[in-house]
Amino acid sequence: MLRGLSHAGLGKIGSDENLIAAASQYGFHTVDINAKGLIERNGLEGAKALLAKHEVAIGSIGLSVEWRDSEEKFREGLSKLAEEAAAAAALGCTRCCTYVLPATNFKAAHFTVLATRRLRTCAQILGAYGISLGLEFVGPHHLRTAWANPFLWTLEETLDWIAAIGEPNVGLLFDAYHWYTNGSTIADIEALTPDQIVHVHINDAPDLPVEEVRDNGRLYPGEGVIDLAGFLRALNAIGYKGSVTQEILTAEPPAQSPEELLARSKAGFDRVYTAAGLA
Amino acid sequence: MLRGLSHAGLGKIGSDENLIAAASQYGFHTVDINAKGLIERNGLEGAKALLAKHEVAIGSIGLSVEWRDSEEKFREGLSKLAEEAAAAAALGCTRCCTYVLPATNFKAAHFTVLATRRLRTCAQILGAYGISLGLEFVGPHHLRTAWANPFLWTLEETLDWIAAIGEPNVGLLFDAYHWYTNGSTIADIEALTPDQIVHVHINDAPDLPVEEVRDNGRLYPGEGVIDLAGFLRALNAIGYKGSVTQEILTAEPPAQSPEELLARSKAGFDRVYTAAGLA
Amino acid sequence: MLRGLSHAGLGKIGSDENLIAAASQYGFHTVDINAKGLIERNGLEGAKALLAKHEVAIGSIGLSVEWRDSEEKFREGLSKLAEEAAAAAALGCTRCCTYVLPATNFKAAHFTVLATRRLRTCAQILGAYGISLGLEFVGPHHLRTAWANPFLWTLEETLDWIAAIGEPNVGLLFDAYHWYTNGSTIADIEALTPDQIVHVHINDAPDLPVEEVRDNGRLYPGEGVIDLAGFLRALNAIGYKGSVTQEILTAEPPAQSPEELLARSKAGFDRVYTAAGLA
Amino acid sequence: MLRGLSHAGLGKIGSDENLIAAASQYGFHTVDINAKGLIERNGLEGAKALLAKHEVAIGSIGLSVEWRDSEEKFREGLSKLAEEAAAAAALGCTRCCTYVLPATNFKAAHFTVLATRRLRTCAQILGAYGISLGLEFVGPHHLRTAWANPFLWTLEETLDWIAAIGEPNVGLLFDAYHWYTNGSTIADIEALTPDQIVHVHINDAPDLPVEEVRDNGRLYPGEGVIDLAGFLRALNAIGYKGSVTQEILTAEPPAQSPEELLARSKAGFDRVYTAAGLA
Repeated sequence: MLRGLSHAGLGKIGSDENLIAAASQYGFHTVDINAKGLIERNGLEGAKALLAKHEVAIGSIGLSVEWRDSEEKFREGLSKLAEEAAAAAALGCTRCCTYVLPATNFKAAHFTVLATRRLRTCAQILGAYGISLGLEFVGPHHLRTAWANPFLWTLEETLDWIAAIGEPNVGLLFDAYHWYTNGSTIADIEALTPDQIVHVHINDAPDLPVEEVRDNGRLYPGEGVIDLAGFLRALNAIGYKGSVTQEILTAEPPAQSPEELLARSKAGFDRVYTAAGLA
Repeated sequence: MLRGLSHAGLGKIGSDENLIAAASQYGFHTVDINAKGLIERNGLEGAKALLAKHEVAIGSIGLSVEWRDSEEKFREGLSKLAEEAAAAAALGCTRCCTYVLPATNFKAAHFTVLATRRLRTCAQILGAYGISLGLEFVGPHHLRTAWANPFLWTLEETLDWIAAIGEPNVGLLFDAYHWYTNGSTIADIEALTPDQIVHVHINDAPDLPVEEVRDNGRLYPGEGVIDLAGFLRALNAIGYKGSVTQEILTAEPPAQSPEELLARSKAGFDRVYTAAGLA
Repeated sequence: MLRGLSHAGLGKIGSDENLIAAASQYGFHTVDINAKGLIERNGLEGAKALLAKHEVAIGSIGLSVEWRDSEEKFREGLSKLAEEAAAAAALGCTRCCTYVLPATNFKAAHFTVLATRRLRTCAQILGAYGISLGLEFVGPHHLRTAWANPFLWTLEETLDWIAAIGEPNVGLLFDAYHWYTNGSTIADIEALTPDQIVHVHINDAPDLPVEEVRDNGRLYPGEGVIDLAGFLRALNAIGYKGSVTQEILTAEPPAQSPEELLARSKAGFDRVYTAAGLA
Repeated sequence: MLRGLSHAGLGKIGSDENLIAAASQYGFHTVDINAKGLIERNGLEGAKALLAKHEVAIGSIGLSVEWRDSEEKFREGLSKLAEEAAAAAALGCTRCCTYVLPATNFKAAHFTVLATRRLRTCAQILGAYGISLGLEFVGPHHLRTAWANPFLWTLEETLDWIAAIGEPNVGLLFDAYHWYTNGSTIADIEALTPDQIVHVHINDAPDLPVEEVRDNGRLYPGEGVIDLAGFLRALNAIGYKGSVTQEILTAEPPAQSPEELLARSKAGFDRVYTAAGLA
């Protein structure tokens, strides 16, 4: 499984170009960046050359379409999606991800219906470019009541939603933090097939009662209490071969320099990959 | 638009065979019955002959699949659906309908996801036999709180759901009572296209505040306060050519004989069709 | 049914703006133009005002995506489609059409598979903007052998293809010339429902054996041998309410001035609409 | 990867019950049988007990629906499919397969359209029971001209068809004989993901020019010239974990007894699994 970096957790790392160089320097294989932006600034050949030079691939782009709000906003975003997908495909990226908040101010059933149709359309457009769509269920308990009505947050609910969306190229963004805060198990991972997983996030949780763990209270891999060795072992055992990308959301910006944070990230990956027998 | 009868509102009318004969006698064109049962009792040729002799067609069959409960029950029903669809198709019936309760004891978002997937599968099987699936939204206000969590009940929500289901052969069962209790307008009908309407129910409502109208407090067409002339005129104007089928749900069984109820039904249809300029 | 004009048959009519003004002047209700171009030249509000001032709507835009060639070309076109659909939707246009040549140099089965998937993707993107996709089967016999392998050209085949594409917003572009050269009948039209027809083309054919009629040998409505009165009557009878748009393809550019051609077109429409009892 | 047996190649092995017992005795893990028949003869609990006792699972059932002929026959088969799928699911089987002849007497494009829609419907019904549909492309050259018009036979064409069918649960039945006769390579396997492969057939080919290899001229694994070690290694490398099931089609029934054929089959599997480093 590939080691991946995102901007989240690296402080003032700066541009996507910086992230690419840093990832390479610290032994990571993929970065989660904006493919279209990279091409706009460097040209297609320049962007390809930059990735090739650093031997880094794009793990996933983010879904920029706003599917949680008005139909008008949804349509506005949609007309950009094909271009973003074309850019990602041109750089060899095959994944695009979005997160799913566990509650909504809209009426839940109606919101579900609208979101199902909108994400299907996104998946259809992405699919035309060979790109899969990953849906990230979100586990921290405090978010379940942060908006008026409960939405979907468990693994099972999200798999059911993926079946309702009904496109072959939709799967999970499987995040260790949400797996942990949902109280899921190693057996839950072992029951998955690799094609159900589009992308993986890794991070760690503080030693608190699981109900009190905050979404922006994340730690670096190996610094907390999540069984990341078991998490990685199970993903590897079912045949997942994609990226495992660090995403550290914190209440305050990290105090360390990007270099220190990169070294800390690398050390965290080394620790948990070694513990999983994958180093 | 064809005049249709269902069992609901005709008291002890008895078998589907009785309903067919009665419909014919009182000038109705279609009946909502169990096509498979008719064939089982009369043979395919016998069932065809019976309908032909009385010059009556089948308006719609009911969806027997239980899509609101466990996956196990859903699958059990599914294996019968193809046979029921085959029977309906063999008798020239092209519609199958189910109703949608406006609340659920399941978590709303998860229930929506499951129901979307299950009704899509039903529509796909029906579609293989040239049959459309009509979804009946249910308007009476008291039902919105009869179960723990609100589901879908408005015209707009139901159309959005149909889009989320995403099959070409899914549309509305458009019931005058639910249109009225939702506070919908003639303009709402005029904004529809005929292919969005799979089937129509007709009935009337007592002169009560709309919030107090009960689902099982229905009157015969022309005996209440719903603008059925406008309802029919609008359906005709948009090009709807299917059945308009009486469905009278009451708290107590009707006191009159089937003959009296048939005569009353015919008189009701005459009145509102005439008022709509369609007689 | 609305009277519509396209550029085809009006000689050097010039810009879409000219076509809009001319359509209005000669009593037509719709024009087939490039919605995105109109907005680029006039701004969204300017384009809306122009159409409103002339009381003309857009009948259909053309599908610019190249779905008949390489995957690369297909994808290139796709990234523009959402913008074109957004432009059309912003101007109230709900239809987009493409034609289907009756033969192909690709292996027929493989081409069918690719075209099915590509047109589905186009329909899905268009559907997100409330736009239907019309497929125009092409009847003239000489085209059936103009490429190496036979493809689809009959009404039945095209309806079967639409079912295989499987999206709710795909239907026919029904062209009188192709209906005629296929030897189809009034009964074939009467067997359709209006939602199966996205758009209609009208034109006439010379008095030749039908096998010899050339695709670019078209006459103005009422100047040839096609039973256009029956064609229009049947479309109206089934409830079609969209545009009937003139499309005259000729081997040589017409010798008359645009004004003469517009007058001739109007006279043709008057003749056949009157003959159909629709004037 | 599981070792699987089918009836094909075992002579007068007799009933599915016999095949189950024989598979167990000779170290095979799965059998391709008729799940519904097994339940009809043994009851659900009896069928489960029989499989459990022999520690044998069902690899795949065959698709009994006739999707290559008239719509009438297709619909007849369809009404049985849900029951067959329910039976398979009840016994833990998650795969159903059908073969694709490389030519057809129907017009190729129209046949493609019909077959696409019909197989999609089959996949949708199977999907409701958690079952995948595997399509077996057929490589022997003589069959490409055995009917009037060429259809689909390459790996690439079949993958494109699967995309056109568009359901998440459709993939390949990947047969070593068809891979070989198509002239495909190890790299072609390595380019697949395991979710693209529903089922695998294994068998061997005589030392003839590949154009002359007959569909019913198959040899037991390891007795011919196919690089089955490379075939198995590549399937294992991409993460395929399903059955590899023997299917030996021959012009004449095998002369050996079932016991000899079972021993020969086991020896063949031992040889090629060992050569692949998988024993």
